[in-house]
Amino acid sequence: MDYEQRVRSIINHLVPVDASAEIESAPVASVDNSILQGLNKVSKWDKEELRDYLEGAPQGKVIKQKIIDIVSKDPIFLPKYNMNVAEWRELTVQRAIKIIQSGVISLAEFNRDPMKYLISMETLNLVDPSLSVKLGVHFSLFGNAVLNLGTEKHHLKYIKDIDTWKLPGCFGMTELGHGSNVQGIETTATYDKTTQEFIINTPSDSAQKFWIGNAALHGQACSVFAQLYIDNVHYGVHVFVVPIRNPDGTTAENVRIMDNGHKLGLQGVDNGRLWFDNKRIPRDNLLNKFGDVEKDGTYVTSIPSKNKRFGSMVAPLVGGRVLISASALNVSKMALMIATRYAYSRKQFGSKGNETPIIEYLTHQRRLFPMIASIVALSFPINHLKQIYCEPNKTSQNVKDVHVWSSGLKAVASWTKTNILQLTRECCGGQGFSSFNQIALFKSDLEIDMTYEGDNHVLLQQVSRNLLVELQKGRYNLVSANHGSNIFDYDFQIQTLKWRESNLVSTLSSKIMAQLDQGRSLEQGWNSCLDTITLLGKAFVDRITLEYLQIGIKKASASLRSVLELCRNLYFSWRVNEDLGYFLCHDGLSHSTAQKIQDSINALCQDMLPIALDLVNSFNIPESFIHAPIAKPDYMSEFRYGLERKY
Amino acid sequence: MDYEQRVRSIINHLVPVDASAEIESAPVASVDNSILQGLNKVSKWDKEELRDYLEGAPQGKVIKQKIIDIVSKDPIFLPKYNMNVAEWRELTVQRAIKIIQSGVISLAEFNRDPMKYLISMETLNLVDPSLSVKLGVHFSLFGNAVLNLGTEKHHLKYIKDIDTWKLPGCFGMTELGHGSNVQGIETTATYDKTTQEFIINTPSDSAQKFWIGNAALHGQACSVFAQLYIDNVHYGVHVFVVPIRNPDGTTAENVRIMDNGHKLGLQGVDNGRLWFDNKRIPRDNLLNKFGDVEKDGTYVTSIPSKNKRFGSMVAPLVGGRVLISASALNVSKMALMIATRYAYSRKQFGSKGNETPIIEYLTHQRRLFPMIASIVALSFPINHLKQIYCEPNKTSQNVKDVHVWSSGLKAVASWTKTNILQLTRECCGGQGFSSFNQIALFKSDLEIDMTYEGDNHVLLQQVSRNLLVELQKGRYNLVSANHGSNIFDYDFQIQTLKWRESNLVSTLSSKIMAQLDQGRSLEQGWNSCLDTITLLGKAFVDRITLEYLQIGIKKASASLRSVLELCRNLYFSWRVNEDLGYFLCHDGLSHSTAQKIQDSINALCQDMLPIALDLVNSFNIPESFIHAPIAKPDYMSEFRYGLERKY
Repeated sequence: MDYEQRVRSIINHLVPVDASAEIESAPVASVDNSILQGLNKVSKWDKEELRDYLEGAPQGKVIKQKIIDIVSKDPIFLPKYNMNVAEWRELTVQRAIKIIQSGVISLAEFNRDPMKYLISMETLNLVDPSLSVKLGVHFSLFGNAVLNLGTEKHHLKYIKDIDTWKLPGCFGMTELGHGSNVQGIETTATYDKTTQEFIINTPSDSAQKFWIGNAALHGQACSVFAQLYIDNVHYGVHVFVVPIRNPDGTTAENVRIMDNGHKLGLQGVDNGRLWFDNKRIPRDNLLNKFGDVEKDGTYVTSIPSKNKRFGSMVAPLVGGRVLISASALNVSKMALMIATRYAYSRKQFGSKGNETPIIEYLTHQRRLFPMIASIVALSFPINHLKQIYCEPNKTSQNVKDVHVWSSGLKAVASWTKTNILQLTRECCGGQGFSSFNQIALFKSDLEIDMTYEGDNHVLLQQVSRNLLVELQKGRYNLVSANHGSNIFDYDFQIQTLKWRESNLVSTLSSKIMAQLDQGRSLEQGWNSCLDTITLLGKAFVDRITLEYLQIGIKKASASLRSVLELCRNLYFSWRVNEDLGYFLCHDGLSHSTAQKIQDSINALCQDMLPIALDLVNSFNIPESFIHAPIAKPDYMSEFRYGLERKY
Repeated sequence: MDYEQRVRSIINHLVPVDASAEIESAPVASVDNSILQGLNKVSKWDKEELRDYLEGAPQGKVIKQKIIDIVSKDPIFLPKYNMNVAEWRELTVQRAIKIIQSGVISLAEFNRDPMKYLISMETLNLVDPSLSVKLGVHFSLFGNAVLNLGTEKHHLKYIKDIDTWKLPGCFGMTELGHGSNVQGIETTATYDKTTQEFIINTPSDSAQKFWIGNAALHGQACSVFAQLYIDNVHYGVHVFVVPIRNPDGTTAENVRIMDNGHKLGLQGVDNGRLWFDNKRIPRDNLLNKFGDVEKDGTYVTSIPSKNKRFGSMVAPLVGGRVLISASALNVSKMALMIATRYAYSRKQFGSKGNETPIIEYLTHQRRLFPMIASIVALSFPINHLKQIYCEPNKTSQNVKDVHVWSSGLKAVASWTKTNILQLTRECCGGQGFSSFNQIALFKSDLEIDMTYEGDNHVLLQQVSRNLLVELQKGRYNLVSANHGSNIFDYDFQIQTLKWRESNLVSTLSSKIMAQLDQGRSLEQGWNSCLDTITLLGKAFVDRITLEYLQIGIKKASASLRSVLELCRNLYFSWRVNEDLGYFLCHDGLSHSTAQKIQDSINALCQDMLPIALDLVNSFNIPESFIHAPIAKPDYMSEFRYGLERKY
């Protein structure tokens, strides 16, 4: 091959070039690879055992099987994509009704067995995100508001009808003018003691309720967030059950509805916009668990602080973030299963008759394998979050942990999933663009995960704010950098990630102090540090991910341990490599260790190559949900002439 | 505010913590900010002047205006999204026919005025990517093959019918089994001298033509890539005009067609799959510019090497990469205009009645501003690429430059655009998810840009391969690192980027040598370096981008210079910051300079804040194409009750 000979001659040409003295020797030659190789040989494991272990909750398998049974026996759940908005919505509501009729999801059980609810919903999300979002709006948002912001009278009146879809519900929080800042909403609820009614009103176009799921077509009641006024005194945001449609489907009196129209994804969800024209509702329609209005207009509450009361009213929303985190994990696993299987069977280039499977290309490995490792790693903190969220008798520490963890993990898991969908789409080439191969739908539908249930950047601020308070209260242990070089040692790894988090939190503290000292407001100081705040929130999630993965490794059987350790090493190297500038600029790693970590990624990919296919096939994703032809053992035959895929 | 006081007390709490000695002082305090501030004050500029300057080609404005006129006077071009696949395709073909009837695009002009073709197509892409892709398949691929692989007999026979859409065409290159590796395709063309016909055959399901635009519905002829055999001798890939449908729309004899079905985007393009069953076509249907078969079966060619002949046959495809680069630039500009305008008018949080425009949040600035700067920067090398591509009498250096630049810029521009669409989608929150705000459609439709016309990772290998050959031939100047610290000085900046490129190319060379010395094949050696190869390709594009931006700055009027310089500085800092680990690990920057570059990003964002809105409004994007309600001056009023947006 003449090109080979030409390249061989490069070395001779290098010498006469003037600047050649500047050239470093090639890193691959200069690094002691013996440390990197051979450490991560993985012993065989039982796929079923790993599947159960990644599932986390012991009841998960049974719950998933129930959903699989329901979905498998009814062709309505088969993939279908080629529809306009009206058809999408009709299919979605029919699917939702089927699920509701099966009894597998109910509000009655929502508080009693939240784990069952979570696992059912994250499994349905794999079938059709529009379906799970439509059900989620009805149960997790509207129903949850009735259940956890209402009292017995509401439970008696509504729960049965919610559980049967007799009363399809919406959740009226977001307005055109106010999304992240819920306390800024403009809709008013004014108490009229003469009739013992609340008057719900939309004072401006910016106050219209916006993006309200189920509002455009099916919703009959809406849990409306509004500013409560009694005798011109403002009591802050409260939640009211407001009828928006009559049982015959016509719009309720003094309500106006418009459609949010076509979207990037989730076409099956009928998002709409609502205006209230001094609409009167009975006093009983106030969800009065945290604040009530007596007949004569006396306001009563167990939580005198407006801010704390508001906090209690939005606290039930945390469940949405837990669900997004868990769903992101599932969808990522499914996309990685599809792309990895294809990568092992798809061949391109190489010698004729013996073409090269594309997984053998380093560019492919470096895109897929760190993601596989990351998703294995993230399974552990997310499973832990699900457990503490489902804990029936939460301590106040539990409540705080759920808030912080769900904020951080929702942000990181949704971004990681978006990144995985992007990479897997590209790794599958043109096939990734076909709806048949399933990555496309998730990519469109789940794009909104970064925004709803709390914008990711806003959520990371919740994480960092908490760490700053911990530091201020003297409860945060600052950690020094580990200047060792044993990069596959857990103690080195965790200290390195702890050092970064701790360095960021103390930097943040000093920066804000410096701003305050210069006479700027806390808000200004906080805003000038938003880059550090974002980094800190992500660093926290990296750290708890490594910690909880390690707890999982310690508890795992001997046969699972080596594959989980390989994932840990690759996850660690990849995360650190992504942020190497920070570690080096702030002396968190020596140059030689940084170099070693960089080089370890290729070596760890080599270790992954023989096992990655088995690893994704050990993911806890129902095989019957994988319709993608490219994920089938003989994908070429899935494209034979005459085999129609109409969906 | 009690929280403020609590934060103030952090400083007191810091001292007693054990590890506090380890804490570095906050970077914001430790860096000499005086260097960073005040340098980038931007003087006023004329928006029209900048618009023309970013356009590059002097005729661009006139060509764009022609498209604007056609599109504005016909409601068929108004946005419409809510359609099933059949409706999408019907609308798209009707739009395509309107454009063709206007005469603005024609194959007759394709070679004569390629700049007009390019600018027309990149402008149409802003109206509807399905439209430009459908036209592109017909003109740039099918028509271009006839024009530049065929000879006079083909021109006489086909060009008129192509220009009138009487003969809608497809481009039959990709097969199910072979995408990137075109030389591996399996379709055969066997010459039968007894009848003077070629027999086109699909020998297996993996040989089916796949993803063929216009094939599912409208195409009548297809330029089919097939392996030529004469008397059992193989002559390599050749291109043949094969009828696939009769003028009445029925499928041609011995052809089978299937539909590729629903996709992530580009629903308006009817991609299909083709099988040929020993279909006979006249000898004249071989596009015979580079290789011909005489009546008696004698093969004649001016290019004896099979590989070189293949290179000539695929060379015309380079235009697609130029077009994707230019289109990516336009779409990025439009998305940035929409998101930036919204960011300056959208308010959230802050004090009541005086809420904070979201552009004032650093998280928002750090997402949008480096992207604005990058797109300004990329305008210059892409405009240069368009110019050298359109050069009528190309030198062999021109041809090589067009190949290398179009490969590198297509990859980087399409990834940058994808990144920008992602960031702008997120920056617009829920509004970014609405199709009305235009980012959604681009996000779905243009996702395939990374894959078609050459997979981005494969294209970057073309760039790196060229640099390696230059090095081997002694024509590559290796550059040493600049250890200065004047980060806003162009000489420092360009040397820093040149150093990285040069360090990567020499590293690559040594690594491959080391592999060969260990007895591995060149293929194995190349694959083991694909990470370095990818980095090198990107580093090359960063370097030429900075260089051509600087050429643009030097030629610019004094009034444009300061805004372009600010863009250059931000582009440089952002690119280096993204890869800081590399610079530090390989001693390309000192720690203090690296730190300064990191810190400069916030400072440069501050400099951008007063001008970014004017800057995006100076982008060369037709205002009449911006339908997004959130990009309008008073976006709230765009959502008033009763204002229907049916599309």
